[in-house]
Amino acid sequence: MTNWKHIDQNAKRWIAEAGEKIRNSFDSALSIQYKSNPNDLVTNMDKEIEQFFIEKIQETYPDHRILGEEGYGDDVTSLDGVLWIIDPIDGTMNFVHQQRNFAISIGIYGDGIGYIGLIYDVVHNELYHAFKGEGAYMNDIPLPKLDKVNIEEAVVGINPVWVTENKRIDYNLIAPIVQKVRGARSYGSAALECAYVASGRLDAYLTMRLAPWDFAAGLVLIEEVGGVATTLKGEKLDLLSKTSFFVGEKNLHDHIIKEYLNR
Amino acid sequence: MTNWKHIDQNAKRWIAEAGEKIRNSFDSALSIQYKSNPNDLVTNMDKEIEQFFIEKIQETYPDHRILGEEGYGDDVTSLDGVLWIIDPIDGTMNFVHQQRNFAISIGIYGDGIGYIGLIYDVVHNELYHAFKGEGAYMNDIPLPKLDKVNIEEAVVGINPVWVTENKRIDYNLIAPIVQKVRGARSYGSAALECAYVASGRLDAYLTMRLAPWDFAAGLVLIEEVGGVATTLKGEKLDLLSKTSFFVGEKNLHDHIIKEYLNR
Repeated sequence: MTNWKHIDQNAKRWIAEAGEKIRNSFDSALSIQYKSNPNDLVTNMDKEIEQFFIEKIQETYPDHRILGEEGYGDDVTSLDGVLWIIDPIDGTMNFVHQQRNFAISIGIYGDGIGYIGLIYDVVHNELYHAFKGEGAYMNDIPLPKLDKVNIEEAVVGINPVWVTENKRIDYNLIAPIVQKVRGARSYGSAALECAYVASGRLDAYLTMRLAPWDFAAGLVLIEEVGGVATTLKGEKLDLLSKTSFFVGEKNLHDHIIKEYLNR
Repeated sequence: MTNWKHIDQNAKRWIAEAGEKIRNSFDSALSIQYKSNPNDLVTNMDKEIEQFFIEKIQETYPDHRILGEEGYGDDVTSLDGVLWIIDPIDGTMNFVHQQRNFAISIGIYGDGIGYIGLIYDVVHNELYHAFKGEGAYMNDIPLPKLDKVNIEEAVVGINPVWVTENKRIDYNLIAPIVQKVRGARSYGSAALECAYVASGRLDAYLTMRLAPWDFAAGLVLIEEVGGVATTLKGEKLDLLSKTSFFVGEKNLHDHIIKEYLNR
């Protein structure tokens, strides 16, 4: 039988170690380097961190499978068994330009059910974590269940690009949401934006195109605080494909799906 | 003769004290409270902090004048003498909903010239500060002069609402900027967004309507790192009126004014 507590302890230990590696890679000066050639740095650090996790996991749990952004894991075509879904650095553009506002994201699933979600804001040393049925936390602080929120009082995460003409969605569906809510924000890391929804800093977050490693951890957190995550059409998310993504407090989520997105 | 160094020392001491007051006001639990009635909390804490500064300033510098968001300062109609321009909590919506991503902003001017700029990210204990002619800093770390950046590589702060239909600007002028840049972000605090531009985390930030207390400190910081701040038409900013606002690295700022905003 799978010892999920044991897995949780190891995952937390490894994520702390990986965060330390990333922090040590920064210069002490606040010069934002590599800006002209961000791909080099992203590739190196992303790869290094993903390989770190893969080594640890394979060593300790040889029968677990790994789905990672950088592609060093397994070729995963089903959700059978224990599956680690890993984004070593979510918010790579922020990582390069800002050296903050990025996260390590790890979701751990058993036969398609999310058991463990870890989103680590490396720079601020804030670990958002959830264990199925035991609630969600930021470090040691419990995250309360989300309170019902009306759209007029909501602060929603949405990138400005989705309210300009784009090939993924008719921006006329999105613009009225932006105009109706109390505030719109955009942080540039899907994993962190999920963590913000789980901790009540945002009431919802939507985007047009995510991969499973962007939201696998977030799903577990959201579930534990009573929130909802679906596609923009309100359909169940597929953990093996790219998809649109809409997470939020349940009442607000239902309202936006019905009155705005499925108009 | 005005002793600007003395003023700088006092201002830094008082801003640290005010930050402490705000942090102490937070609950230790991560429940985001007062969401349904944000105005109460904003009013109380905004007022309390502004009055704290006014007392300190009037006691120490009885001939200085104060322009503050909450209106407890002087009725300021000219820039003569020493003028403190204060936003006790910039990013009030974030303060209420997130208990982070807000700042205390203080710009201190002599006969209309900016001598001291202080933007204090209270929760992260990060003080962005500049003294005329002596450079800008985040805590003890010097902020380098901004490097030239092309629009395709730029990360720009812009609220999604300005690319939907609104009464301040034709969104068709703004949308092509969002589509051209590498990334768009929105943090919801003009003072912090100025500090991010000064520290290279954003390459530019624009918005349609700010009051002097939102940007007075930011102007001093930006000047010290070689950036530029104007209205959206490229005109000089007026420290006594509400105005549109566009700050950025010089090359990028000029390019966007010429090719996008003044089309």
